Amino acid sequence: MDEFGLIDKYFKSSSLQRNDVIIGIGDDAACLAIPSGMQLLVSTDTLVAEVHFLNSWSPYDIAKRAVMVNVSDIAAMGGLPAWVSLALTMPDFDEVWLQQFSKGLDDALREFNIALIGGDTTRGPLSITLTIHGFVPAGKAVLRSGAKVYDKIYVSGELGAAGLAVSFLKRDDIDSLDRKVVEKKLINPKPRTDLIEIIQNYATSAIDISDGLSADLNHICDLSNVGASLIANNIPIHPLVKKHFDTLALDFVLSSGDDYELCFTVSPKNESAFLASLAKNKMTCYLIGTIENTKGLRAIDANGEVKEIKPHGYSHF
Amino acid sequence: MDEFGLIDKYFKSSSLQRNDVIIGIGDDAACLAIPSGMQLLVSTDTLVAEVHFLNSWSPYDIAKRAVMVNVSDIAAMGGLPAWVSLALTMPDFDEVWLQQFSKGLDDALREFNIALIGGDTTRGPLSITLTIHGFVPAGKAVLRSGAKVYDKIYVSGELGAAGLAVSFLKRDDIDSLDRKVVEKKLINPKPRTDLIEIIQNYATSAIDISDGLSADLNHICDLSNVGASLIANNIPIHPLVKKHFDTLALDFVLSSGDDYELCFTVSPKNESAFLASLAKNKMTCYLIGTIENTKGLRAIDANGEVKEIKPHGYSHF
Repeated sequence: MDEFGLIDKYFKSSSLQRNDVIIGIGDDAACLAIPSGMQLLVSTDTLVAEVHFLNSWSPYDIAKRAVMVNVSDIAAMGGLPAWVSLALTMPDFDEVWLQQFSKGLDDALREFNIALIGGDTTRGPLSITLTIHGFVPAGKAVLRSGAKVYDKIYVSGELGAAGLAVSFLKRDDIDSLDRKVVEKKLINPKPRTDLIEIIQNYATSAIDISDGLSADLNHICDLSNVGASLIANNIPIHPLVKKHFDTLALDFVLSSGDDYELCFTVSPKNESAFLASLAKNKMTCYLIGTIENTKGLRAIDANGEVKEIKPHGYSHF
Repeated sequence: MDEFGLIDKYFKSSSLQRNDVIIGIGDDAACLAIPSGMQLLVSTDTLVAEVHFLNSWSPYDIAKRAVMVNVSDIAAMGGLPAWVSLALTMPDFDEVWLQQFSKGLDDALREFNIALIGGDTTRGPLSITLTIHGFVPAGKAVLRSGAKVYDKIYVSGELGAAGLAVSFLKRDDIDSLDRKVVEKKLINPKPRTDLIEIIQNYATSAIDISDGLSADLNHICDLSNVGASLIANNIPIHPLVKKHFDTLALDFVLSSGDDYELCFTVSPKNESAFLASLAKNKMTCYLIGTIENTKGLRAIDANGEVKEIKPHGYSHF
């Protein structure tokens, strides 16, 4: 089967349809209609075998994860995902692999009402690049650069489980239930699309935590030209991280990536409306600190002691 | 240097600015404004080392070629390119390579007034995926599916030089000037953006010739539910293909890819206006045949003999 047969069989036929896709897969380019009043969001993530996923993972999970991490980027801008294009590089034509991969892709895309609009299939070492497109009302994109002094810093959920799973990969002395629980967090991250409206309405800045809380919060601080003080005890740490890292759990969580929770800032004047909106939607976010004028990151512990945090996270090189 | 320093140094600072880029490189996603009345075109091409380019090519040329083949896809839709995102996978951090690559990327993007809006850098086997975005007035995209019976088939330039360069790669008995001439065509293809307005105004269907004339024209025929008769002697063949392939030159050209000329169809009722527009712009296109009701591809030689053409081009698997 050649590239065109392959695309037809595994990607084109099953693809979710959307009215704003004038032409999808199968022409020189896709042709798309942007709803009036909306701006376009575009983000690209590459997943390389043995760097961002293990070859031992099921193709179904690999495809799903590729979608999830891309959706997370759109959610972090306060936008709604709409379309993806897929660049799939494979060492050879493995029909079983492709069948499972396309099923995972399709299931993940349907979960977020995203259409596959095109891409490229090439021969080479296994790698998956998704470019995701979403919409945000004009002028409403939530940027990393919008944090202001006195803004409160929130995170959307417990941190550290995905990083814990990575740390377990090279160990064979780990309780198998513990391993299973955190592996699920690593392999199947849940982008926080449930928070999109709240982020759009209340966040002054936002980022998804892919590289680690300290590194990602530092991006907000750098681009907003501010600093941050964290309340150490308020940082929500996954219970298994506490179990395995004990007193080092906080240090671990500060530099532990792949959780895909959101970190965002809320102006004090909107905080009560924000909290009311969370409560109304039965959602929980965690207040972890305050934006300050003094550059850099600090954590204050229960004794009032202040410790500098050196931003540190996953580095690609 | 980590990913962020690398992006700043080689990609962010030099990037061409456009007013429609609200937020470019450096946030979770780029935020972009689509001009009113326009639809969005999106196309993705991956170039894998030793599959789509040779490691021996200069990084400058590799980057330029990646842009050119992507621009060609937008031109084939009758659209104007606007933005690209770059997914760059590299085996290691090679500053000299990156410096040259980013210069080639920047020069190519400036040539077409395209902004680099984001992307991803990852570690792994060398591969470049560009996702290009362009605009076309709403409803004006030129599709592969628009060819009608009696439409005239045109190509925008001489074919076969890039394919000839590929065929030379494994030979050491080739005249060095010949090799140089065709290698330039392979390494530095020129997307036909000069034809965008004419394609938009006059073409009923269009495709860029990346896989070979027979394979690409066959895509038009398949999607338009028609066939095609070619006038063998009218197909413009690069002189060096004639020199090296003699009587087999036509067969070679029919399945020879990478030229990135456009193949398109024009309705007979618009043909004189189309030709007048070409003449006014001092441009040449070549009439190579006619769309017919009978499926499949045929070529008619100078003696009136008809030969079936089996669509055959570059296959990725």
